[in-house]
Amino acid sequence: MEYIIRPIGIIHSPFTNASQTPIQSSGSEAIGQIEIHSEYVDGLQDLEGFSHIHVLYVFHCSSGCSMKVKPFLDDQLRGLFATRHPCRPNPIGLSVVRLIRRRKNILEVAGVDMLDDTPLLDIKPYVPDFDSRANVRSGWYATRSIQRLRR
Amino acid sequence: MEYIIRPIGIIHSPFTNASQTPIQSSGSEAIGQIEIHSEYVDGLQDLEGFSHIHVLYVFHCSSGCSMKVKPFLDDQLRGLFATRHPCRPNPIGLSVVRLIRRRKNILEVAGVDMLDDTPLLDIKPYVPDFDSRANVRSGWYATRSIQRLRR
Repeated sequence: MEYIIRPIGIIHSPFTNASQTPIQSSGSEAIGQIEIHSEYVDGLQDLEGFSHIHVLYVFHCSSGCSMKVKPFLDDQLRGLFATRHPCRPNPIGLSVVRLIRRRKNILEVAGVDMLDDTPLLDIKPYVPDFDSRANVRSGWYATRSIQRLRR
Repeated sequence: MEYIIRPIGIIHSPFTNASQTPIQSSGSEAIGQIEIHSEYVDGLQDLEGFSHIHVLYVFHCSSGCSMKVKPFLDDQLRGLFATRHPCRPNPIGLSVVRLIRRRKNILEVAGVDMLDDTPLLDIKPYVPDFDSRANVRSGWYATRSIQRLRR
């Protein structure tokens, strides 16, 4: 079984190669523009009420995947699904960004961690009641200094 | 441009039709099993250190999409991307569930809100530093009683 997905827009960011790119959106204040193809613009109504949005996108510069990877934040091999590594069986990325404003089909957002020209797959509102959890254990990430994100 | 995605496993849940299914995982204590195809089992190493995981999956019972939808929690039309409605241009679902335990290629999880036999696309660890945000505005959701989720 397979499914076909088609981008609904494109993400413009200041990052043109992976080595410049923040490791996660929470470590970034970078401004980007999410441009939605015109046939989807009506679906953006009401989005401005939300301060944060989930962005789903294609890791378009990734290729192949291995079940053991060395994350950017770590120095030993980890199971792929215990990491956010971009090389995955289905190369779908997920980030939470802050919505600054909308101008027609363009969303100006803060905290981008995607490469420039990243294909956009979906936008979902970030709703703490659905998306935020307390009393969380963060596995191997907890042993790594989050300061290393702040580049 | 289009991309092909292939399920990496299947999600077993108690819910066999949409009307029984919790609206979001945060409103559910339902137990489910995520079964990962054997070729991906090595990628699950280290996952047990995480109490919560993001699950990406296909809304396999959805078809078509409209740019204006009436969410389950609301009584007026909203822009699709300001909702979590399952009928989307790319029918990809996103939920946070609690990881109870792993047995080889089976993850037992709590808080499922997917239909039984949902195709699994990806698993990512839930890391509050990446995924949780404070000072959030929740748009039209904020005006709806979250109690309506608790069915």
